[in-house]
Amino acid sequence: MITSSSNAQIRAIEALLKKSKERKEQKAFVVEGKKMFEELLSRRELLKKVFFSESYVSEYYPEGLKDILSDIPYEIVAEHVFCQMSETVTPQGVLAIAAMPEYSLEQMISSKEKKTLLLLEDLRDPGNLGTILRTAEAADVAGVILTKESVDVYNPKVIRSTMGAVFRVPFVYADDFFGLLEILREQGVRLLAAHLKGNKTFTEADYSGACGILIGNEANGLSERAAELATEKVLIPMAGKTESLNAAVAAALLMYEAFRSRRRF
Amino acid sequence: MITSSSNAQIRAIEALLKKSKERKEQKAFVVEGKKMFEELLSRRELLKKVFFSESYVSEYYPEGLKDILSDIPYEIVAEHVFCQMSETVTPQGVLAIAAMPEYSLEQMISSKEKKTLLLLEDLRDPGNLGTILRTAEAADVAGVILTKESVDVYNPKVIRSTMGAVFRVPFVYADDFFGLLEILREQGVRLLAAHLKGNKTFTEADYSGACGILIGNEANGLSERAAELATEKVLIPMAGKTESLNAAVAAALLMYEAFRSRRRF
Repeated sequence: MITSSSNAQIRAIEALLKKSKERKEQKAFVVEGKKMFEELLSRRELLKKVFFSESYVSEYYPEGLKDILSDIPYEIVAEHVFCQMSETVTPQGVLAIAAMPEYSLEQMISSKEKKTLLLLEDLRDPGNLGTILRTAEAADVAGVILTKESVDVYNPKVIRSTMGAVFRVPFVYADDFFGLLEILREQGVRLLAAHLKGNKTFTEADYSGACGILIGNEANGLSERAAELATEKVLIPMAGKTESLNAAVAAALLMYEAFRSRRRF
Repeated sequence: MITSSSNAQIRAIEALLKKSKERKEQKAFVVEGKKMFEELLSRRELLKKVFFSESYVSEYYPEGLKDILSDIPYEIVAEHVFCQMSETVTPQGVLAIAAMPEYSLEQMISSKEKKTLLLLEDLRDPGNLGTILRTAEAADVAGVILTKESVDVYNPKVIRSTMGAVFRVPFVYADDFFGLLEILREQGVRLLAAHLKGNKTFTEADYSGACGILIGNEANGLSERAAELATEKVLIPMAGKTESLNAAVAAALLMYEAFRSRRRF
């Protein structure tokens, strides 16, 4: 049992939680809480090591951990040490190190089927990104492509707010986002940009065939370059003095519009 | 100029930022940042006092504050003291104490016009509530009614994420939420509850006339009692393994559906 917060493994977890650079180097990230751990069990090829608090094991696995973990390595951690390494205010007592899933951009953009892609330019807020991934799964989005400048998906706040979708929705950070938009256009993928100067409302746009939904940065919206590469700028009508919608809300309205047009509900 | 963080006014602001009880007693709250301060200037009857950092005044009001504030009291605060009292990581240098706007529940529910109300049961996340108010303004919602157990609208995180909508969308905490749902039903307001066991998709529901959109708690959804008081339970279709949508996303989809049916876009 780990009883000291200066234990090297505890230090390593703190680094993975706090530093994006550390996560990238190790190609690993931290997953916290009961629900997220259980989601991860369904992708156990990603599971590298599990840390349980003493009380968690006695509450949920009084018969032992063998059945659930088989040969996945684990450690038991004293309560006070667990509290210290945890990112959350009220730790649930389980935390795991997971390998980053790898998705192929080529595969994501190559298939000829009708599908919706989500294209995120410089999204910055972890809660927004988590909510967007969660909504993307619900709206049957085939993949999410982000600029390198967007927030790190493996940030613990993003992971938490995906509610498990991070293990199920393919996502890729594009080295050349604008080049990719050009490739998608050439392939006949309709690129619909949520834009304050859209000339068509989002409900009138055509989501049939393959389409990409373009969402911009929270403070500045889409860059001019990204907006110019869009096939169409679509407007979300707004009453009152609202200047814009939250990025996750705008993304949700467009993703659900595409979903609705494909599923005809 | 205030140069000490032990100054009584600075202490009072810290208390207003941190404690819901303090805000209720004083019927006042704190608004931070350039954009929110400027929004508040359009409701200057609420503005009680403004605190500027030295550098903010020299950057934005080099000619002095008389024209903008007239007789509204203000203080200049030394940079290091401003940083200490601020809620934000990178303070913008302006912070104001505002009186809570007062809205009448009777007025909100009495008018006979076609309108959309939003009914929130035990919403807990400040970011969700802020985003919901922001979306409510955009979707032309006439008023938001919350259970007493919901998060405090005047929590600084809520205020920030409303992007100013908190000054424009009427909202009320209902003493008797269930009693109110009954009254609304008796008045012929159609109560549409977002529900995982809905028997009609949200796109098929009837939003004409007056309607109320019911959204439940993030973790538990609507209580059975609230769901039973709804005229109709509506379902948001979900693909994949998603168990539910984020509350602000679910609210946005329904509010925009109502807005769309009224405005015919």
